[in-house]
Amino acid sequence: MDYNKKSLELHRRKRGKLETRSKVPLKSRDDLSIAYTPGVGAVSSAIGKNKKLSWELTNRANTVAIVTDGTAVLGLGDIGPEAAMPVMEGKAVIFKNFADIDAFPLCINTKNPEEIISFCKLIEPSFGGINLEDISAPRCFEIVERLEKELSIPVFHDDQEGTAIVTLAALINACRVTHKVLKELRIVINGAGAAGIAIARLFMHQGVRDLILIDSIGTIYKGRKNLNPIKKEIAARTNHRKIKGRLEEALVGADVLIGVSKGNLVTGEMVNSMNKGPIIFAMANPVPEIMPDRAMAAGASVVGTGRSDFPNQINNALVFPGIFRGLLDGKIKKVTTKMKVAAAIAIAYCVRPTKKKILPLVTDHYVVGKIAAAIKNK
Amino acid sequence: MDYNKKSLELHRRKRGKLETRSKVPLKSRDDLSIAYTPGVGAVSSAIGKNKKLSWELTNRANTVAIVTDGTAVLGLGDIGPEAAMPVMEGKAVIFKNFADIDAFPLCINTKNPEEIISFCKLIEPSFGGINLEDISAPRCFEIVERLEKELSIPVFHDDQEGTAIVTLAALINACRVTHKVLKELRIVINGAGAAGIAIARLFMHQGVRDLILIDSIGTIYKGRKNLNPIKKEIAARTNHRKIKGRLEEALVGADVLIGVSKGNLVTGEMVNSMNKGPIIFAMANPVPEIMPDRAMAAGASVVGTGRSDFPNQINNALVFPGIFRGLLDGKIKKVTTKMKVAAAIAIAYCVRPTKKKILPLVTDHYVVGKIAAAIKNK
Repeated sequence: MDYNKKSLELHRRKRGKLETRSKVPLKSRDDLSIAYTPGVGAVSSAIGKNKKLSWELTNRANTVAIVTDGTAVLGLGDIGPEAAMPVMEGKAVIFKNFADIDAFPLCINTKNPEEIISFCKLIEPSFGGINLEDISAPRCFEIVERLEKELSIPVFHDDQEGTAIVTLAALINACRVTHKVLKELRIVINGAGAAGIAIARLFMHQGVRDLILIDSIGTIYKGRKNLNPIKKEIAARTNHRKIKGRLEEALVGADVLIGVSKGNLVTGEMVNSMNKGPIIFAMANPVPEIMPDRAMAAGASVVGTGRSDFPNQINNALVFPGIFRGLLDGKIKKVTTKMKVAAAIAIAYCVRPTKKKILPLVTDHYVVGKIAAAIKNK
Repeated sequence: MDYNKKSLELHRRKRGKLETRSKVPLKSRDDLSIAYTPGVGAVSSAIGKNKKLSWELTNRANTVAIVTDGTAVLGLGDIGPEAAMPVMEGKAVIFKNFADIDAFPLCINTKNPEEIISFCKLIEPSFGGINLEDISAPRCFEIVERLEKELSIPVFHDDQEGTAIVTLAALINACRVTHKVLKELRIVINGAGAAGIAIARLFMHQGVRDLILIDSIGTIYKGRKNLNPIKKEIAARTNHRKIKGRLEEALVGADVLIGVSKGNLVTGEMVNSMNKGPIIFAMANPVPEIMPDRAMAAGASVVGTGRSDFPNQINNALVFPGIFRGLLDGKIKKVTTKMKVAAAIAIAYCVRPTKKKILPLVTDHYVVGKIAAAIKNK
């Protein structure tokens, strides 16, 4: 199916995907007097006296802002806030459809981290949580860190944390079906942006010791030039064997390749140079670093991609609805690493894994409840 | 009916009034591939190349932001952004129900005009228009003026412009049923906040010459102390007879009282001191400056209030859905005075007026189309 053509046609015909609706009747004068003036005055007055009542008397407790500056949209990069909207509307309708959360996209006209931070603080009274989206690295790290301290509602950067969670879930099950042990794996992460860094951090928290990240220059190692502070911190904790060079050199003898970059094509030979029966997650979108059939032909044991038209789709759409359902229901103020691990395990144990099905489908409605329950218990 | 109790009960049971919904199916993998990745990439890419396509391929062209700082909510005053939410959700569901517009409330955590202005500029890429709401005077005047210059989407401050339009509509029809001539009326406006100033400006534009505004100190006249720049400007153009004193003095011999303040109770004697058969719009909410039966007993010819449980409700809920329907459909960038007058006339001519029915009801669905058509033709 030509998804591009179908998608353009759908968006043009429907003029976007999201709408608002009333939860209350508005037919009669009495309806209006209850939903609006004069009756609403009593509701506003009650919240004015006790701000906490905004969680009970308005839709705030079920509302999430999807905030982006449009600098890192899909594989398209910095295409601007207007162009980010179709993706954010897509997230909003996924939020509603799978987690019954009322999310609203706010694609904003700035790339300045301070302005993004103060924007999120301005909207805090109207929302139960903030989903940051498609904000490019390294700005996104500072923004999340600051907001976690300065907001009283939870913030979740899907490209970092959502991707890290779903990747960990996929790797847990890839280990289950291949009888490999997570902590003993040699892992190469191609890409050191929001996703790559967050995946590395979560993997290390889970005990992974042999990890190499690669950016557009090559492997990241302690003492390399051209490292921003975030990469410098990662350099100190990874690549202990000090492998220098490019992806090709890093992959020799590795057990796992995680592809979260646009660049660096992976060849059959490169897969072949890895340890026996490697796990390949070629998550670049829309074109994976290597097509699944080629990777399998070159000896891969499990292959996943970001795409819905191949088996083993590793997509954060599996994660964010459940995360926010749990955060909102549990009145949780901060997403901890323990919660991320619990979410990954919950996703992994949604299926009895096979090499062709290491993850549940995005359309499997029960996943949301499993994730929500897992993080509420942490 | 006890609207306060019913309203509290409804808000608690429903947890607010607004929700989001998907306009597209999301059942199958194919649905997701069209609404979200990978298909949505083509839509974002198209807008990235031509930003104007955001008006055709997203919901932007039908989306309005309701922005408030919660400083002038109903008659409750500065109760904060959390407490403003029930009113803003009410406006959002009225937008949807009467004009099929997807409006979203953003109650923000600042009272600083510069921050409110830059906030509105940040959200511009996501919306087709901005409805400012319940921002106290005199800050609201500067904010609207600046945004009209600095935004490329229309901005409308409902408490100013919406109230002025519906009041003009009501006065046009009060004149029709009493055979009075608008330009010849002596008009007293009790209240010199957002609504009072905007009503005065619109009335003067329509040729009204004898106009007195009253604030918490008393009548406003040229040379008085304690006038902010906005009131100073109004002082130079009104109260040419230089009436000093309070409401009581101003009303003697007047034809019309417009009440848009919380203070100043109006007595039967005061109505009695006015010109014969005066028009009384006692719009303070929820308690009018004088109850309709007392005003009638004291000789008033037409009485209107802001309340839905008396005849002649003068409420801007009659205005804003139609204004934005017209602005969005007509791709209009700025609300002009001509449009405001056209909207008022359109509302007035929705009914064959009688003294008990000078305006259509807020629940009369045809009003929106009449207003929208009127402003599109200006």
